[in-house]
Amino acid sequence: MSSSPQPTAIQDLYPEHLAHCYGCGRLNEQGHHIRTFEEDGQTVSEFTPDASHVAVPGFVYGGVIASLIDCHSTATAAAAMAAASGQPLARDTGRPPPRFVTGSLHVDYLRPTPLGETLVVRGKAREIKGRKVVVESTVYAGGVATARGEVVAVLMPDNFGQT
Amino acid sequence: MSSSPQPTAIQDLYPEHLAHCYGCGRLNEQGHHIRTFEEDGQTVSEFTPDASHVAVPGFVYGGVIASLIDCHSTATAAAAMAAASGQPLARDTGRPPPRFVTGSLHVDYLRPTPLGETLVVRGKAREIKGRKVVVESTVYAGGVATARGEVVAVLMPDNFGQT
Repeated sequence: MSSSPQPTAIQDLYPEHLAHCYGCGRLNEQGHHIRTFEEDGQTVSEFTPDASHVAVPGFVYGGVIASLIDCHSTATAAAAMAAASGQPLARDTGRPPPRFVTGSLHVDYLRPTPLGETLVVRGKAREIKGRKVVVESTVYAGGVATARGEVVAVLMPDNFGQT
Repeated sequence: MSSSPQPTAIQDLYPEHLAHCYGCGRLNEQGHHIRTFEEDGQTVSEFTPDASHVAVPGFVYGGVIASLIDCHSTATAAAAMAAASGQPLARDTGRPPPRFVTGSLHVDYLRPTPLGETLVVRGKAREIKGRKVVVESTVYAGGVATARGEVVAVLMPDNFGQT
């Protein structure tokens, strides 16, 4: 039986030792497995919250929405920095995309996000300043914007966590 | 066998239909069960991340830190609003504390948060403006501040989610 090849998410290109993130790491068995794709000059992630990801019954927990914006934004930053340096985002190039950490995260909750739908996040890098990328994202449920995020993503230092 | 009574967390006082939050709901079996206490004019929460709550190996995922700040802050807002109206925060008063939702969440990640420690969040309501409470919080790991948060918490409308 054959199947069509799966599209490659930005997170699929993170090297193994940086692929354990609870939000988006493909190697984290308990995590959310958020996956982000480039599409028409934007980035897009889709995520379907579990029944347990509730704020009050019927609505999605804000911490899960913040997580979605967080990982979507660091992936968007990686794609933007790769593009700015002419690096192709593809498998088997021998050069993984740059990996970002979150310097700051801001989320405006515009309205309650209904549970039971696949959420779509659309984002864009607004600015690259040295090692920082500012990313703006919007979360949609059933086509309606329910949260808006701004993340300052910072290129992960080689000695991350050692100081 | 008798045991000393457990201290009452602010979240223990939320009514049952508002106690399902993934971050802090006592009735959410899969959730984080964040619990917040009043202490010396501040609020304090303690939370020990799971081994899976990782950003890169050895460090806590930013989305979990955002969740901790989120639920800590809505509880702090509840306590502040209750105090402002002279309402005691105690069991069996017949009057649960007001319940807040998050209008906006801002987190500055000051340094990587090491995994394997119990994190402590300390917060304070900075301002009450009508239905809104602005809460500032700091997350500590081993006594070192690793993240700072500001949340604008909004009194939950009676018709929450109906519009």
